[in-house]
Amino acid sequence: MENLNLGKHISGQFNAELEHIRTQVMVMGGLVEQQLTDAINAMHQADEELARRVIEDDRKVNNMEVAIDEACVRIIAKRQPTASDLRLVMAITKTVSELERIGDVADKICRMALEKFSQQHKPLLVNLESLGRHTVQMLHDVLDAFARMDIDEAVRIYREDKKVDQEYEGIIRQLMTYMMEDPRSIPSVLTALACARSIERIGDRCQNICEFIFYFVKGQDFRHRSGDEVESLLAKK
Amino acid sequence: MENLNLGKHISGQFNAELEHIRTQVMVMGGLVEQQLTDAINAMHQADEELARRVIEDDRKVNNMEVAIDEACVRIIAKRQPTASDLRLVMAITKTVSELERIGDVADKICRMALEKFSQQHKPLLVNLESLGRHTVQMLHDVLDAFARMDIDEAVRIYREDKKVDQEYEGIIRQLMTYMMEDPRSIPSVLTALACARSIERIGDRCQNICEFIFYFVKGQDFRHRSGDEVESLLAKK
Repeated sequence: MENLNLGKHISGQFNAELEHIRTQVMVMGGLVEQQLTDAINAMHQADEELARRVIEDDRKVNNMEVAIDEACVRIIAKRQPTASDLRLVMAITKTVSELERIGDVADKICRMALEKFSQQHKPLLVNLESLGRHTVQMLHDVLDAFARMDIDEAVRIYREDKKVDQEYEGIIRQLMTYMMEDPRSIPSVLTALACARSIERIGDRCQNICEFIFYFVKGQDFRHRSGDEVESLLAKK
Repeated sequence: MENLNLGKHISGQFNAELEHIRTQVMVMGGLVEQQLTDAINAMHQADEELARRVIEDDRKVNNMEVAIDEACVRIIAKRQPTASDLRLVMAITKTVSELERIGDVADKICRMALEKFSQQHKPLLVNLESLGRHTVQMLHDVLDAFARMDIDEAVRIYREDKKVDQEYEGIIRQLMTYMMEDPRSIPSVLTALACARSIERIGDRCQNICEFIFYFVKGQDFRHRSGDEVESLLAKK
């Protein structure tokens, strides 16, 4: 935790406030991870009750985003942080926005699972399970890296997204063959495709969180760089 | 412009800095609007050169996001803004992130238009043109509302998204019939569907920018409320 430089402030109260926000991010991240895991299970096992619970709990995720954002603005106004403290607060406000959108994916998967899938087309969803588990693991790891502001781990997770993309491409090809073979399956397959795309986007959002870790630790904005550029920028410092 | 409360600061330099960032947001917004208009024209007229130019210029949009974000962090560190100044800076940093993602849609449309459409399936894209023009107008209006922090206009634009959603639903239904009638069209139709979805998401992003306008003017976070709730909250104040 030493690279967080917490504990160096004259005001113990300021430390406590920063630490509290960080904890809140971890609580929110844990909830989102649970939501996503539940959504994938609900889809896979056609568990309607679980799906409904995930949809219900999306409100909690949304409320946490707003509360953490408010706490960030309050801390800026009151404590006037600079340097790494300010970077931490800015990284947090951007990270919770990504987490909220990952929460939306869980909600969306459950709504689709509840409404659109006829029993006959449930097997389509099997294709999505492994992609879903992959992104849950990525989310779990990036939250862990965020908690420790661990840049090496963030680099590893950043690279992982390429595998998610490849897996997604494979699923699209597979789903397309279903449609070609049986045009009646088209509506269900389209829903499965939309789910797959949302899940694939979770990988991108985890990559964004990695960039906020880079930003906090290195003090430099790494967004919109190519993978190679990111590697060489990180190596330089 | 009076509701921006600019010009009240003791430091003329601080005013100038805030005004400069606001101008940068408008420049970025103008560029994104142009990119989106060009992308829709490139798609509609199958103009490869224009499509290539849009893809090339996406870099400019990305760079502007990073530059404006850096300017926001600098102004927080140096000027320690509070109250409406701080809300303005926070609203700007979130708005440029939405604008950047709208820029990505322009880029994506052009990439798809260049790579995936066989001459035979170009008519599919006609369906998307009107949806595209609708969202360009929405973006244009929301930028205008942001420049003036005009809450009445923001409310009107916020409501407009419902129409975009309805138009999108109609397009999906229409595209689905193509696939059912001719399975050979499936790959092209899927591309058209992905374009339509990206365009529809622009409406959501404009709605988000409306929420940042509400936040700046009313000092309250309106995210994740239902449309009715937003209306009644706005009416109350």
